[in-house]
Amino acid sequence: MIKIGGNVIDNEELLEHFLDNLAELPQPLVVVHGGGAIATGLSKKLGIEVKMVNGRRVTDSETIKVATMVYAGLVNKKLVAALQKRGVNAFGLCGADGDCIRSGKRNSEDIDWGFVGDVLPDGVNGSLLERLLEAGIVPVMCAITHDGNGNLLNTNADTIAKEVASALAGIYDVELTYCFEKQGVLADPSDDESYIPEITPDNYHELVESKVIAGGMIPKLDNAFLSLKHGVKRVLIKHAANITNTKQTIVKLS
Amino acid sequence: MIKIGGNVIDNEELLEHFLDNLAELPQPLVVVHGGGAIATGLSKKLGIEVKMVNGRRVTDSETIKVATMVYAGLVNKKLVAALQKRGVNAFGLCGADGDCIRSGKRNSEDIDWGFVGDVLPDGVNGSLLERLLEAGIVPVMCAITHDGNGNLLNTNADTIAKEVASALAGIYDVELTYCFEKQGVLADPSDDESYIPEITPDNYHELVESKVIAGGMIPKLDNAFLSLKHGVKRVLIKHAANITNTKQTIVKLS
Repeated sequence: MIKIGGNVIDNEELLEHFLDNLAELPQPLVVVHGGGAIATGLSKKLGIEVKMVNGRRVTDSETIKVATMVYAGLVNKKLVAALQKRGVNAFGLCGADGDCIRSGKRNSEDIDWGFVGDVLPDGVNGSLLERLLEAGIVPVMCAITHDGNGNLLNTNADTIAKEVASALAGIYDVELTYCFEKQGVLADPSDDESYIPEITPDNYHELVESKVIAGGMIPKLDNAFLSLKHGVKRVLIKHAANITNTKQTIVKLS
Repeated sequence: MIKIGGNVIDNEELLEHFLDNLAELPQPLVVVHGGGAIATGLSKKLGIEVKMVNGRRVTDSETIKVATMVYAGLVNKKLVAALQKRGVNAFGLCGADGDCIRSGKRNSEDIDWGFVGDVLPDGVNGSLLERLLEAGIVPVMCAITHDGNGNLLNTNADTIAKEVASALAGIYDVELTYCFEKQGVLADPSDDESYIPEITPDNYHELVESKVIAGGMIPKLDNAFLSLKHGVKRVLIKHAANITNTKQTIVKLS
């Protein structure tokens, strides 16, 4: 299972290289993607205010339309067509397709998140994914879910990767790789070779306290640890250009 | 098989009514949808020139992005979520998903159509659709196809309905219904009750010569006749609000 970040999708050369490597990976394979930077760009062009809280997008009724267009439309189908070109039988889906991922609208006392969804317990339709995988299909999943009541909801792509990987861990030995534009979790953000080879709960807390790990990397690592607790065998964080080499951060429970 | 036009999708009340009825139809069921009016609106908001020739959209590199966002993203997922709400196991797809519909970029000496695709002979992956239908899934198909070389292409939704219905006619007894915002092919455009009950090749030519049938209705009827020639059992043209009643135009070969 491979999660690819929005900054990779924005970088045409890096994306092509990533997809070439992805096409060589053994299957079964699931791809999850973001697309936040493109959604932000489209919102701005349309004069829709972009409001982020702790790196997460507040999603009003206009913003969920933008997110659906960009994630489920533009980015998802671009990836699917590019994989089909490479002989990979990709099939794009959002959470509404086949009732694949069901979520609940986020309730928060402090912030009105709007159309933001948190995946429900047992919200991932693992049997549908299993049927697709057994048919030789590579599901390409975007960060849109649904509530079963007709509403599409914006859900963080890292979280979707965690939820899907966890659901599939009951059926397969799952390895979850978070791909982005760095070699891993970096000890020194200015030095791409300073990736930390292993993160366990022990050094994680130290790294957070010393602010080596901060911002969006914290929920990513929280998702990584949760995946492992739910039975995922291995979680890797690495550069999208190098998914076949061993420069990476391995996240482990001990 | 039901094809739903863009004007229906734009009309919230009509769409809800249509979907309520659709959910009651017997399965297997395939839905094909347009979305041109919404794509035109988004293009204008983004300052992208909208160029139509004979009612068909000239699709440059920016316009195919808009079409993909609107058809495969916004409209497709809205329909899927709305059907899921009604207990219909809908699954949205464009032609790239599972290599479902493969097309070739249109070559024309007169006009550079850009990213417009014509469905290839045997371009519809009938066995994939059959597998989905046999699994109790309702495919919801948008008007985006692919060329197998990484390009997404804009394809007329009426044509997609014809091609998919024809491909499935080898497996099922197919009835194809074109739904829009009128009771059928009208003898008098200002009188919604003036629908022509039956059109055959005989009266079709008369109706075209007398300009009762004109504009976008001509390719729609051409698609209807081609479907019948390819084995589709019945083609209906009728109002999206009344898919369960018998006010309609039936298109027949004789």
